[in-house]
Amino acid sequence: MRPIDALVNSLSEARVVTDPDVIDSYARDRTFVEPGKPLGVVLATSRDDVVTTMKWAGEHRVPVVPRGGGTGLAGASIGTDGSIILSLHKMTAIKELSPADGIAVVEPGVITADLDKAARKHGLMYAPDPSSYEISTIGGNLATNAGGLRCVKYGVTRDSALGLEVVLADGRILDTGRRTMKGVTGYDLTGLFVGSEGTLGVITSATVRLRPAPTAPPATFAAEFGSLRDAGAAVSAIMAAGCQPSLMELLDRATLAAIDEWRNIGLESTTQAMLIGQSDASDGQAMVEKMERICAENGASFVAVSSSPEETEELIGLRRLAYGAKERQGACLVEDVCVPRSLLPDMITAIEAAAVRHGVRIATVAHAGDGNVHPVFIFDHGAVEPPPEVWAAADEVFKHALKLGGTLTGEHGVGLLKRRWLALEAGPVASEVQRSIKAVFDPLGILNPGKAI
Amino acid sequence: MRPIDALVNSLSEARVVTDPDVIDSYARDRTFVEPGKPLGVVLATSRDDVVTTMKWAGEHRVPVVPRGGGTGLAGASIGTDGSIILSLHKMTAIKELSPADGIAVVEPGVITADLDKAARKHGLMYAPDPSSYEISTIGGNLATNAGGLRCVKYGVTRDSALGLEVVLADGRILDTGRRTMKGVTGYDLTGLFVGSEGTLGVITSATVRLRPAPTAPPATFAAEFGSLRDAGAAVSAIMAAGCQPSLMELLDRATLAAIDEWRNIGLESTTQAMLIGQSDASDGQAMVEKMERICAENGASFVAVSSSPEETEELIGLRRLAYGAKERQGACLVEDVCVPRSLLPDMITAIEAAAVRHGVRIATVAHAGDGNVHPVFIFDHGAVEPPPEVWAAADEVFKHALKLGGTLTGEHGVGLLKRRWLALEAGPVASEVQRSIKAVFDPLGILNPGKAI
Ligand SMILES: Cc1cc2nc3c(=O)[nH]c(=O)nc-3n(C[C@H](O)[C@H](O)[C@H](O)COP(=O)(O)OP(=O)(O)OC[C@H]3O[C@@H](n4cnc5c(N)ncnc54)[C@H](O)[C@@H]3O)c2cc1C
Ligand SMILES: Cc1cc2nc3c(=O)[nH]c(=O)nc-3n(C[C@H](O)[C@H](O)[C@H](O)COP(=O)(O)OP(=O)(O)OC[C@H]3O[C@@H](n4cnc5c(N)ncnc54)[C@H](O)[C@@H]3O)c2cc1C
Repeated sequence: MRPIDALVNSLSEARVVTDPDVIDSYARDRTFVEPGKPLGVVLATSRDDVVTTMKWAGEHRVPVVPRGGGTGLAGASIGTDGSIILSLHKMTAIKELSPADGIAVVEPGVITADLDKAARKHGLMYAPDPSSYEISTIGGNLATNAGGLRCVKYGVTRDSALGLEVVLADGRILDTGRRTMKGVTGYDLTGLFVGSEGTLGVITSATVRLRPAPTAPPATFAAEFGSLRDAGAAVSAIMAAGCQPSLMELLDRATLAAIDEWRNIGLESTTQAMLIGQSDASDGQAMVEKMERICAENGASFVAVSSSPEETEELIGLRRLAYGAKERQGACLVEDVCVPRSLLPDMITAIEAAAVRHGVRIATVAHAGDGNVHPVFIFDHGAVEPPPEVWAAADEVFKHALKLGGTLTGEHGVGLLKRRWLALEAGPVASEVQRSIKAVFDPLGILNPGKAI
Repeated sequence: MRPIDALVNSLSEARVVTDPDVIDSYARDRTFVEPGKPLGVVLATSRDDVVTTMKWAGEHRVPVVPRGGGTGLAGASIGTDGSIILSLHKMTAIKELSPADGIAVVEPGVITADLDKAARKHGLMYAPDPSSYEISTIGGNLATNAGGLRCVKYGVTRDSALGLEVVLADGRILDTGRRTMKGVTGYDLTGLFVGSEGTLGVITSATVRLRPAPTAPPATFAAEFGSLRDAGAAVSAIMAAGCQPSLMELLDRATLAAIDEWRNIGLESTTQAMLIGQSDASDGQAMVEKMERICAENGASFVAVSSSPEETEELIGLRRLAYGAKERQGACLVEDVCVPRSLLPDMITAIEAAAVRHGVRIATVAHAGDGNVHPVFIFDHGAVEPPPEVWAAADEVFKHALKLGGTLTGEHGVGLLKRRWLALEAGPVASEVQRSIKAVFDPLGILNPGKAI
């Protein structure tokens, strides 16, 4: 009997997929990484399925690749040779939603947007909103510590995670954290699992924080700048003035040009950057007017403010078009560095220089309020993977981010793609400590080996 | 040569205190725990001193008790027999304060209030504000994950910690985290050290987040209620309405009576609880008026709103008097449980029942917006430690908090005092995992042994 047969016996055929084509579709994420040949896919429907899978994997020393929506941009859920893909996407129950306590308890496969929708019915929201929120799962968001547009105000996924149920590598069940807003018993294990990219345990339930949903539609501004430096200065000035935007996105010239080419937005030849900001506070209109003034003071050539839902949709729509506009132009490698806020213009300038030097096309958007920059490398549609000059430019971008006191990844994670550069950021002591922690949770090394650390 | 002489030789006499009286003063915190007989106190002035101390301690297997301001309420920095107390309170440099990036880099001995004051000069603030902020240190706040009045809006110390420099048990230096607002490379080691009560490493530097300071004076309301349940319902309704108070404190009848006895505040015989709330938002006045209305709708017998700094001072002053008023009445054991927000009235009712059943005096204040409740057990001034009936009542309070899905400690930590109850909250798997993590960082068990876990 092959090991996989033992698993099929324990879990039933319906829950273990061995069809190679189906396996292949579960072995990919949203990167270019070519998967290996996994043994199969487990479609877990309960914590028990996960426990059974982990015990089996331990016994047979089979690597397990946990998987949510498969929307990752770092190769973290890529299926490797001889592994089992453990998909959580069928565990979609919202087990509890307590408006009084401001929390929800959910299974890991719940789609991010579905939780937010459920919360809105009670005047609440689930704040973390990666742009992938309609296709990513809460489990995946937790395992990557996903950010999003709103996190400039509401924090990243970590800031909404109160407690987890985790199946450990040996099948034991660990409960971390709590259902209260505060608590300091024991080490912060919840924080340890958040962002661990499936290498420490499999999240089977999460207690997350819900926040009051804004009561009025958000007020929005857009500002155009003749230089990146001015736009960057405006961001710094806005943050320093205590404006607390609920969204603050920067689009560079290349991104605007891609959108203009697609939708003809009447882009001025002098516009080098656009800043789109929002406030969802009860005095949001006054807040964005203040942000607009600060933009004007910092040399914006054009500013518009809106609080009508339609106009707001139009302005935010521009940001939403960014990715699609780039995909029209070619295949995209979406990168993700983060620098201290004030160095945003330096970072974007360095990105533009790298593009020129290596003759590659890069269009950049940034969660500007947090210094989180997404350079998107655009190359030939036909290519199966990014050509060498793209990686050479990316290498330069990563190193520059580190030189500025920044990090290789603000929100997408390390996965497979960034491991090459990891040692440059984490010194030898940190690397050793990380490996020791990994060994505590996964002494056999069966949980998503080769990823993240 | 005694081991301590070797340490004196390496560090100089000025930095190693061996006078028994001085040692004793460094061996206590703000609890009743009687210290042991430590070998000495190291007054570290640099990271190198800490490294030297840890290497020496490892060589001689001497337990090390890190210590900040010694203001702890859990016995976590109590000096034990044969230990070395490693005091960080002389490392007070604010090494960097960058308004542009919204961060500061500080040594661990910086007094919390001093960092806040330094930030205010740039229109920023350091948000975490334990009531002890004029005497506690940033290192101690990090090691306990301290909360405070403002944390209902700005989060606990954890939410302001971006990166740490830590001297490990064997003297190696570990850098965790980063100086950016976001970042997901590697496991969250920063979070692991925050709240670890000096058992995993010694924090020698911290990069913390600063936030824009409110520009206008806060608006404040106070509301009196004829029943705790009404006050609790008002808190729930306020939070559910999305009001986002920057402070939300509840005082029970016993606390109000203690204050009244001292300062004659004209307490009505029917008043069972008072709620004091604040908003520091730019539309704070409107916000507190909304909160005031919600209090009235929930049966408040009296409400007052103020935005003049003097009246605000008076209202907040009431809250500040709470502890002093209790200390006048007797010796105080300050406890600290946290429950899901909606169960606040149940928790306080159970506390009052425990007081009656065990014939002890308990006066309670709560960081109500977070469900964090501080029952203060008042007993005879002369007693060296809380009498058995106080512990019996406390035992009941802790168990009730756990029954409600709450936690033993919302912000003060486990230290020595709560270890007895710890197993009731953390199951066997979590306890085992905690111990394994401890072993990764401190295989010899020399860092604050017998505390926290
Ligand atoms: C169009 C688009 C826009 C995006 N925008 C953003 C954005 O704004 N912000 C952002 O942060 N990311 C963004 N992403 C990246 C991606 O969506 C996030 O990383 C997301 O959190 C991944 O969730 P997932 O459910 O798809 O996880 P997967 O891709 O399936 O897995 C990601 C990682 O999580 C692990 N994992 C998944 N579920 C579990 C579990 N239950 N237990 C343990 N480990 C688990 C996997 O092993 C893997 O390491 C975007 C992606 C796309 C395609
Ligand atoms: C009047 C009063 C009011 C209080 N109000 C609050 C409140 O509102 N909220 C709250 O959370 N707490 C409160 N406390 C408790 C206490 O002030 C906090 O726990 C505070 O964070 C302790 O800081 P400290 O510098 O005094 O640390 P200490 O008491 O010296 O040490 C506390 C713990 O931290 C460890 N430690 C200290 N420095 C370091 C370091 N550099 N590296 C590693 N470990 C270290 C110690 O080993 C110990 O485990 C209050 C205390 C008093 C007396």
